[in-house]
Amino acid sequence: MSDTISQMRREVLEIPTAVDRLLTSGASDIQHAAAAVRTLDPNYLVTVARGSSDHICTYLKYATEILLGRPVASIGPSVASIFKAPLHLDNSLCISVSQSGQSPDIVEMARAAKRDGSLSVAITNDPASPLANTSDHTLQIHAGPERSVAATKTFVTSAVAGLSLLAEWRGDADLRGAIHTLPEALERAISIDWPEVRAAIGEESSLFTLGRGPVWAVSNEAALKFKETCQIHAESYSSAEVLHGPVSIVDEGFPVLCFAAADAAQDALVEIADQVAAKGAKVFVTSKRSKAAVGIDHIRTDHALTDPLSLIVSFYAMVERVAASRGINPDAPRHLKKVTETV
Amino acid sequence: MSDTISQMRREVLEIPTAVDRLLTSGASDIQHAAAAVRTLDPNYLVTVARGSSDHICTYLKYATEILLGRPVASIGPSVASIFKAPLHLDNSLCISVSQSGQSPDIVEMARAAKRDGSLSVAITNDPASPLANTSDHTLQIHAGPERSVAATKTFVTSAVAGLSLLAEWRGDADLRGAIHTLPEALERAISIDWPEVRAAIGEESSLFTLGRGPVWAVSNEAALKFKETCQIHAESYSSAEVLHGPVSIVDEGFPVLCFAAADAAQDALVEIADQVAAKGAKVFVTSKRSKAAVGIDHIRTDHALTDPLSLIVSFYAMVERVAASRGINPDAPRHLKKVTETV
Repeated sequence: MSDTISQMRREVLEIPTAVDRLLTSGASDIQHAAAAVRTLDPNYLVTVARGSSDHICTYLKYATEILLGRPVASIGPSVASIFKAPLHLDNSLCISVSQSGQSPDIVEMARAAKRDGSLSVAITNDPASPLANTSDHTLQIHAGPERSVAATKTFVTSAVAGLSLLAEWRGDADLRGAIHTLPEALERAISIDWPEVRAAIGEESSLFTLGRGPVWAVSNEAALKFKETCQIHAESYSSAEVLHGPVSIVDEGFPVLCFAAADAAQDALVEIADQVAAKGAKVFVTSKRSKAAVGIDHIRTDHALTDPLSLIVSFYAMVERVAASRGINPDAPRHLKKVTETV
Repeated sequence: MSDTISQMRREVLEIPTAVDRLLTSGASDIQHAAAAVRTLDPNYLVTVARGSSDHICTYLKYATEILLGRPVASIGPSVASIFKAPLHLDNSLCISVSQSGQSPDIVEMARAAKRDGSLSVAITNDPASPLANTSDHTLQIHAGPERSVAATKTFVTSAVAGLSLLAEWRGDADLRGAIHTLPEALERAISIDWPEVRAAIGEESSLFTLGRGPVWAVSNEAALKFKETCQIHAESYSSAEVLHGPVSIVDEGFPVLCFAAADAAQDALVEIADQVAAKGAKVFVTSKRSKAAVGIDHIRTDHALTDPLSLIVSFYAMVERVAASRGINPDAPRHLKKVTETV
């Protein structure tokens, strides 16, 4: 085991290079799409995605609402594929995210959104995919072939493509600058893999991940990866939601991993982390401000909105090791196929 | 234990009466608000809520998109309370849901939405609450005092209030008619409490609930109640999402409870229920169409969009018994207070 390397880990190691490639090779696509969005000046956005890609949409939703003040609605693909309900989408922007660009319900919903009035932008690894072909603009993520079943490098590159679109739309020099220093920050983030969190998880079968605001999206992604690659029942909550009921399942030693960015939500999140720790949980948080919860190492980037990306890279490095320590091959998740086609 | 009755069960038994009272006492408020919404003809909706109330918003989101073609964006209260980000909300409708109408972040987000251009409608049990006072229109749910920590009757009455608003907005006689026969249907739903599901849950510590489209909202609500009242780690997924990773935690005998309505999504949901059953899970579904999954008893209402409400009432009746069978007092969930105030 020790001299082989999983496909998942190989792709985690590729993340900084893949992001760098996207920022070079993808720049003109992003600028072109941003110009069209600026011209439209959309009233609101809709997003279309599933699984990890939908967590990217959650991240972009917070970023859009905070940076640009446009509300963002996540539309369940079933609205088109099952319920056949036309929407009134004039003067809106539709962002769809799919690595493969193949899933029939995502393609159908994105096509319906364009038909119903949206300017449609696809974020995908395959510019020749049905999703790309049905959209007004395509942001190719330039991630190279994804062989791991669990998405890692395509999560980060898709998030960076979407965030870059927002930075260009807004003409935001600070955010643009922070995005361009990401490859170096993400390189450092890979080597942080939270041994204390791995030790606390041990053979536990359930845990919570927490976030608040944009970083909640990477908490969602982390919970999915714990399930997918480690068979751990991890569930993600906003720190503002966890005390509304979910906390009842927390008993002595229950692991909780809190993702905190250096943003306006940090103190509120850390306060909840400390409260949950006081109930007996083993709580870890990527912050230096906690009292009862254990602060863990983290890489800060040059902007609050890029911080979640360094955290998910450290998480990916960790979760691959958790799988290995449980004797699970992260490249062969139980019951899963690489492309899930849903109607 | 056998001759006492929990506060939670008492309130479940009150549901049909409470809905009937809402439909009588609340009718003029609903018509008044619907007239204002029709006059506005909003381009899109935003919703503001947490916990069980947020599941009502998910239900109303699907209903609005399917019935009225307007996209619905759930706005995280932190956008106002933490990130202080103004939104562009001209020509939108904001629906906020809170039983108490007290939570500071919900009130702040609802106030910000009105300031930023939304017509604001509050759904609450307290017409003198801060949330009601900050909104253009209030739909009082007339549920009577809620003493149980776990919301049940206020979930159903809030959902009915919101759905009635949509029925009046649309002038939809079929839906209006189905809503008016709900008290009788819900009365029958109370006595269905799924003994076979209770037996399968036994002492299991994890399970999944599934739905698709509008009924996915009650799957979300069910998962929260399992955690809150039974300390079971239940997690809700759309049946279209569960095969994208989450299914990895399903092992032999893992319980899965699928909520199916008599709607366009039923067959797609049942197909996934059967697939998950084939992986060894103990899968139950409120449908007669399954092959490998076990069909369980259910009350159908007079409209596909009211079906989820009879299902959640049967679920509430069941989950109170699951708590009791585990020796847990459902009126005293571990770590919880009645009103959770978040900033």
